[in-house]
This record gives sequence, C-alpha cells and structure tokens, in this order.
Amino acid sequence: MIVTKEKVHFYETDKMGVVHHSNYLRWFETARVEYLRRCGVSLNAMLADGVVFPITEVRLKYKNSCDFDDEIEVQAYMSSFTKAKMEFTYRVIRCRDGAVAETGFTQNVFTNTGGQIIRLGPEWYDKIKAYVDHDEPWKE
Amino acid sequence: MIVTKEKVHFYETDKMGVVHHSNYLRWFETARVEYLRRCGVSLNAMLADGVVFPITEVRLKYKNSCDFDDEIEVQAYMSSFTKAKMEFTYRVIRCRDGAVAETGFTQNVFTNTGGQIIRLGPEWYDKIKAYVDHDEPWKE
Amino acid sequence: MIVTKEKVHFYETDKMGVVHHSNYLRWFETARVEYLRRCGVSLNAMLADGVVFPITEVRLKYKNSCDFDDEIEVQAYMSSFTKAKMEFTYRVIRCRDGAVAETGFTQNVFTNTGGQIIRLGPEWYDKIKAYVDHDEPWKE
Amino acid sequence: MIVTKEKVHFYETDKMGVVHHSNYLRWFETARVEYLRRCGVSLNAMLADGVVFPITEVRLKYKNSCDFDDEIEVQAYMSSFTKAKMEFTYRVIRCRDGAVAETGFTQNVFTNTGGQIIRLGPEWYDKIKAYVDHDEPWKE
Repeated sequence: MIVTKEKVHFYETDKMGVVHHSNYLRWFETARVEYLRRCGVSLNAMLADGVVFPITEVRLKYKNSCDFDDEIEVQAYMSSFTKAKMEFTYRVIRCRDGAVAETGFTQNVFTNTGGQIIRLGPEWYDKIKAYVDHDEPWKE
Repeated sequence: MIVTKEKVHFYETDKMGVVHHSNYLRWFETARVEYLRRCGVSLNAMLADGVVFPITEVRLKYKNSCDFDDEIEVQAYMSSFTKAKMEFTYRVIRCRDGAVAETGFTQNVFTNTGGQIIRLGPEWYDKIKAYVDHDEPWKE
Repeated sequence: MIVTKEKVHFYETDKMGVVHHSNYLRWFETARVEYLRRCGVSLNAMLADGVVFPITEVRLKYKNSCDFDDEIEVQAYMSSFTKAKMEFTYRVIRCRDGAVAETGFTQNVFTNTGGQIIRLGPEWYDKIKAYVDHDEPWKE
Repeated sequence: MIVTKEKVHFYETDKMGVVHHSNYLRWFETARVEYLRRCGVSLNAMLADGVVFPITEVRLKYKNSCDFDDEIEVQAYMSSFTKAKMEFTYRVIRCRDGAVAETGFTQNVFTNTGGQIIRLGPEWYDKIKAYVDHDEPWKE
C-alpha cells in the first residue's frame, strides 16, 4: 500500500459545496503514478517507449463527502498484476475525522499507441512485479 | 431512455492523445440533468428547496476510446427510482463508427443540506415517477 | 465573428455557486477550434502534421457571473493573424438577459513538436487567411 | 511573497503532451488560498460569513511549457489591496531548470452572496492588511 496526500482545492468543489465526484478518479490516477514511481517506473518513460495504459474499468463507492480545504489521504495497492493489465484498489480517508470517504477500484490494460493490447516487456514487468510481491493492503 | 450529444473538447484530452477517463462521469452528470429536465424537474429548483443529490456509487467499463473532436452520444435511463435514491444506466456511443465506447452506472441519494438522507417529497417524486414509468432502455 | 453555444454544466460550478472562472479559457478554446473548422482547418490534421499551437497570452475581464444551466454564447473573431501567431478576441453573452459576462483575448503561436516557433506553411496559412480577411467583429 | 508547490498531474495534460493552459488559473487560486491562510483568513470562514470573492480580471503570459510530472513553484504576492478588492501577481517557476514558465495577474472583488460589491469588514481587512504590509515581491 502506498499513501498519497491531497488537499481539496476550491476549483474541485461544485455548487453542492463539496468536492465534485469526478475528482476521485483524478486522485486515483495520481496514486497510480506514485505507485509506479515507487516501483522504479516512470509513466513518461513508458509513453516514450510506446506503452499506453488506458483505463478499462472503474468502480467507486462514496461514503462521506469532502469539503474544500479538507486534507485527504489516498491509500492504494495493486490488487492484481499481469503482463496485460494492472488493477488497483483504493481507500480515501478524510483526515479531519479519519472517516473513509470513498473506496474504489480501477483496471488498466497495456496497449501500443495503436490501441492494441500488448504484454508488458520485462524491463517494465520485472520492476513492478518485484514491488507488488511485497506490497500489502491496509488493515481493515 | 434519453440521449445527450457531446463533442470531445481539446481540454478533455490528455497526453495519451484521447479523452481523459474522468470526463465520462461529467457527461453522465449532464445526461442526468437533462433526464430530470424531461421529467419537469430543475436541479437548481431542487437545490433551492434544500434537496441535495450526492453520488454514492459509480461503475464504468471502457470499451473504446474517443478522440478529440469525436461526436458522442450518451444514452441514459433511470434503472431504479425510489424516494431515497435514483440509479441510472448509461451507454456511450462513438458516432463515427457506432461503437459502444463505455457503459456505466451511477447511484445518487437524496439528502438535506446537512448530508442526512431524506425521502423525496411528492412535488419532486411524482413528476419523476410519471416519466420513469414510461421510460425504456435501449435495444441491445 | 463566429458564435459557439455553451450551457453551464454542474461540474463547471464551484462552491460560490456559479461557474468557475477557469472554464472561460476552455470555452474560448472550443471557439478557436470551431473558428478554424470554419476556415477548413482541423486541429487534429495540424497536430498530425507536426504543428503545435501553444497559448502564449491570455487576458480576461469578468463582468457578470453565469450560473449552472445558464445558456451562453461565445463570440470570437481573429483580431490578428500572421504565419507565426494568431490572436482572438472574445465576448461571452449570458443568454437569459443579454448581459456581457466576459471579454477576453488570447494569443497562440505556432511551433514544431520540439517547441520551436515556426512559420505556418501555405496549406494552413492560405485557408485561414482567406477566412479572416472577410471576418468582422461584433457591433458594439 | 509566498510559494506553493505543484506537480503536473497526468489529468492536467492535453493532446499536445504538456499541461493545459487553464490549469495555471487553478494553481493561482491555490496560491491565493494559501496566501490568505498565512494572513490568518480561511475562505470557508469568509464564505460562511457571506463574503464572496469573484475573479474580475486575469492576465497570463506563457513563457515555457510544463510537462507531466514537472515540479513547479508558484510565487504569489498581493500587489494591491483595498476593502473592495485584492490583486495578486504571480510567477511560475519550472523547477527542473529554473525557467519562468508563466507570469500572471488576477483581481478579485469582494461581494455579498447577491453579487453586490461590499467593503471588507475589519475582522477580515485588518488581518490581511497586516500581512500585506510586510510582504515583498520576488527579486527579478
């Protein structure tokens, strides 16, 4: 599990006065980028190598809303990983009271720039695999 | 089922060259707003009446990506409706080839401005219910 | 002058209850895309040809705010055009009362994918120039 | 002058491969929020007190583009402050090479929730004024 910190920006709120629900997908993305960085993998380098990683599935449950200026913690771990895809599971904590704000799941596949699914080469796979094998989810 | 049209804006693309996946949640929202308008319900009027409608669940499957300038069609129908919540099911069509780009599901609950779940009053419920009872999903 | 229509989406509002000011830059972009389309120029084709068009300057004055669901009209004309840059001037009208919501100005330069300023080739320049020469601003 | 740090997120890039220009307005907003926090003023508290602070003017010059994952530094100081409005001047530094990425200016006015311009009460004005009087811009 890795943890990324966010602070709810004013521009992320909407007329209901709380954070717009689409932003959680954006924070999940930031967590994935950070997760891969911990594996020693840069998304810019993958892109430069012609590896693209489109999202193929998203699931989100909203438990408690976050307000402007709320500090939040995005917990993420890779719940499944193969040469063709990676799946992450997330939990968002609202720091002011420790409440679970959201839980989520995403799946990415790996494709070439033409959109065809590929199998990740060892220069990427091995680094990620080594990290994932020692990763653990949060304690419930 | 209602249909809303979108065109992929440049600012909705990302470095992978296609639309960022968070935008589908935004287009679904636009479809919900339009759906309720067809029911005779304005979200501004609901908000002014103290009724808030936070998203509580989202599910999305991405089938085919959309490019900048792609015309897309968001098909939406209300798959479940009670005084406490509404659920929508969506299908996004990429107009240039008729491909299904995404399928999705959202759930909103109705709350007061303090975040407590409420039961929708008849001035809102009856209008929506009358429309939903005659609504039909798309033909597969 | 060309005119594009927008409707303020819920996700474009913020906690102040009106549209977030960054969205005007996005609507201006949509107007530029449409303007060039009228010239017979597709931004996707320019990009595929290695021509990039980064924004180099923006000026905006906000006169009247727009609310969720407001219909707005973005008026745009190209106030200056050379082989190295294009400048647009904008006026945003709030349709419910005809009020000017914003006025704006943007400048783009043309560069190659390495970020170096280029001079637009005749296959692009001539089409745009022919249109611009007959374009007129709004009547004040 | 205060400094806020940002990191360019993947969702902030566009099809040109660099950060979308509208994001600078968002980072400026984050810098203003932080500036006021340093003054001892919370925007949530101002909003709860019925004080709204719409943007009335924006000016931006883009010098060098920022890429995904770039670390940037937003420098902001309040270049003018009265009971009716506040003006900020900004400079964005791209950390990898110290280049000035953007310079900017914004003006906010203070209004009530009905949109009428007000004069800031001493409970807000005095705190901000005390901080601004000792603030200094960056060294050129």
